[in-house]
Amino acid sequence: METKTVNAYGTEKANAPLHSMNIQRRELLPHDIELEIHYCGICHSDLHQIKNDFGGTMYPIVPGHEIVGRVTKVGKHVNKFKAGDLAAVGCIVDSCGKCEYCQDDLQQFCDEGVTYSFNSPDKYLGGATFGGFSESIVTDEKYVLHMPETLDLAAAAPLLCAGITVYSPLKNWQAGPGKKVGTLGIGGLGHLAIKIAKAMGAYVVVFTTSPSKVEDAKCLGADEAVLSTDAEQMSKYARSLHFILDTVSTKHDVNTYLNMPRHDGSVVLVGLPPEPLSIGAFNVVVGRRSFSGSNIGGIAETQEMLDFCAKHNITADIELINIQQINEAFDRLEKGDVRYRFVIDMASLKK
Amino acid sequence: METKTVNAYGTEKANAPLHSMNIQRRELLPHDIELEIHYCGICHSDLHQIKNDFGGTMYPIVPGHEIVGRVTKVGKHVNKFKAGDLAAVGCIVDSCGKCEYCQDDLQQFCDEGVTYSFNSPDKYLGGATFGGFSESIVTDEKYVLHMPETLDLAAAAPLLCAGITVYSPLKNWQAGPGKKVGTLGIGGLGHLAIKIAKAMGAYVVVFTTSPSKVEDAKCLGADEAVLSTDAEQMSKYARSLHFILDTVSTKHDVNTYLNMPRHDGSVVLVGLPPEPLSIGAFNVVVGRRSFSGSNIGGIAETQEMLDFCAKHNITADIELINIQQINEAFDRLEKGDVRYRFVIDMASLKK
Repeated sequence: METKTVNAYGTEKANAPLHSMNIQRRELLPHDIELEIHYCGICHSDLHQIKNDFGGTMYPIVPGHEIVGRVTKVGKHVNKFKAGDLAAVGCIVDSCGKCEYCQDDLQQFCDEGVTYSFNSPDKYLGGATFGGFSESIVTDEKYVLHMPETLDLAAAAPLLCAGITVYSPLKNWQAGPGKKVGTLGIGGLGHLAIKIAKAMGAYVVVFTTSPSKVEDAKCLGADEAVLSTDAEQMSKYARSLHFILDTVSTKHDVNTYLNMPRHDGSVVLVGLPPEPLSIGAFNVVVGRRSFSGSNIGGIAETQEMLDFCAKHNITADIELINIQQINEAFDRLEKGDVRYRFVIDMASLKK
Repeated sequence: METKTVNAYGTEKANAPLHSMNIQRRELLPHDIELEIHYCGICHSDLHQIKNDFGGTMYPIVPGHEIVGRVTKVGKHVNKFKAGDLAAVGCIVDSCGKCEYCQDDLQQFCDEGVTYSFNSPDKYLGGATFGGFSESIVTDEKYVLHMPETLDLAAAAPLLCAGITVYSPLKNWQAGPGKKVGTLGIGGLGHLAIKIAKAMGAYVVVFTTSPSKVEDAKCLGADEAVLSTDAEQMSKYARSLHFILDTVSTKHDVNTYLNMPRHDGSVVLVGLPPEPLSIGAFNVVVGRRSFSGSNIGGIAETQEMLDFCAKHNITADIELINIQQINEAFDRLEKGDVRYRFVIDMASLKK
């Protein structure tokens, strides 16, 4: 298959800095679009995968799945996009298209396995797929999203993973008027959860371990913000919420939070702590509660989320960096030192 | 308050045998009924509470919450029952009646705390409530069930806890025609789960660690029975079930089972393992699955379950014992050596 060499940032092993490298992108197939990448967000799962926290990382790895830019070329059968369109690629770049999950627009659960934007087997070129820390990407149009023109493009990049990761469960568990939603953690996901849940009409209570983020949560629109280390405060929320969105990506105790939903309520995990979580039987049995999970969203729902965010003018609060600052950014991300999402200005790749 | 002395079996401390003792029952209040206990089932939670596995056991303890018999006396304002009626008392003997849970017939989640048949603070006499290992019980008629005349009374006793514990989640998670339901464990709860799920119209797949129970499961009506130690067999069930009812009361690994429901499916725990269960984030996040719990059922649903079991002629498979065999029965229960529920013939108390 014909390929094209493009510049990217990646690494060959788990504990080595990312550096400039060349990768191959396929020449356009009839349904492909080529996207010049303007901005790419940095997600906690980039860090997990670079470090091989979940096992199975294929090196070299080029991370990045919050990809926005402009279409530069389209394959001859493409009809959803034309050159010059703003567009985006999120976590999913391929799926079987035939299984019941794909048919139900739940490509994230594809029976044959999703092809993720990076670190998945590349069906066309072999090796691993390469993500958005690169100058361009080639993707089947079915997995490409229309970017609303009204949103700040850099600040909108994190919607492609962080945004859909919180939008999908907020919608599935019916956040809206009359509902009290708890959110756990105020990071890349958590700060968008506050904004999106509020835009859906829910009453939002934020739990954070960080005293400095209590005020931030209110600035982000939360109705209440609770320091989770304050046991007295915490005890007031028992059986008071409809559901809790848990965005924490590191090991943490969910039992405290399992006592907070009303009967039939859920704590919904969207972070991916590498260590198992410990759950006491009584915490689910009493109140018929659930500890649930949710994983990004399908392509149609991702487009719906982008349109929702455009309507409500929701973007992430970001810190824009050059690609040359990427290793420093990962160090800071690991310490939780970012409010609230790093986004790479991919124009810096040409420097 | 006036009381009456009745004979019972109980114990004063955690690691001592149960023995004959006298306890007090209140004289009938206007809404009370007095039930002469004919049979009382033995539940795994009797064992947990006797041994103080969950902490907080108040001694002396008289266990037993699968109580069936005949009404001997009624208070002057009782209109649901008359002397001579078959009746039953399950796990719940009082609740506030005013909170939203009680108002919704979910007394098991009462905001002020349920009064259980045994080992709850007794609002009338002080100390702890005493359960069904006794000659009679006095209970407000609101918490007394009508026993269908058509069921074998001894074999129906376990419906009062084991039956409602599995009926309620089977109904809540919509077991029925077209649904593939997994059940985990074939004990007191599990064997009733098979019968009830089949009567609801579901396709039932049973998982057991015990080779000797594979055939039993089929005799009980299961469509398939799988030895859970056979990894190859187990792998065939990934993403194939609608939900799984987990009746295991001891420590076990639920992660294997979390991979079996289709998307949005649940593993629903009704057993009460004293140790926390460990859950990998991916096992709930992928497939938007839930680890959920369910706790007995409300009074109205318990009556509905009894009527359902009468209609479908469902009772437990029991081993009938005399009260004098109670300590041996608990030893055997601890080893899982009962098919599938011990029931005490309470007439033996008079021997």
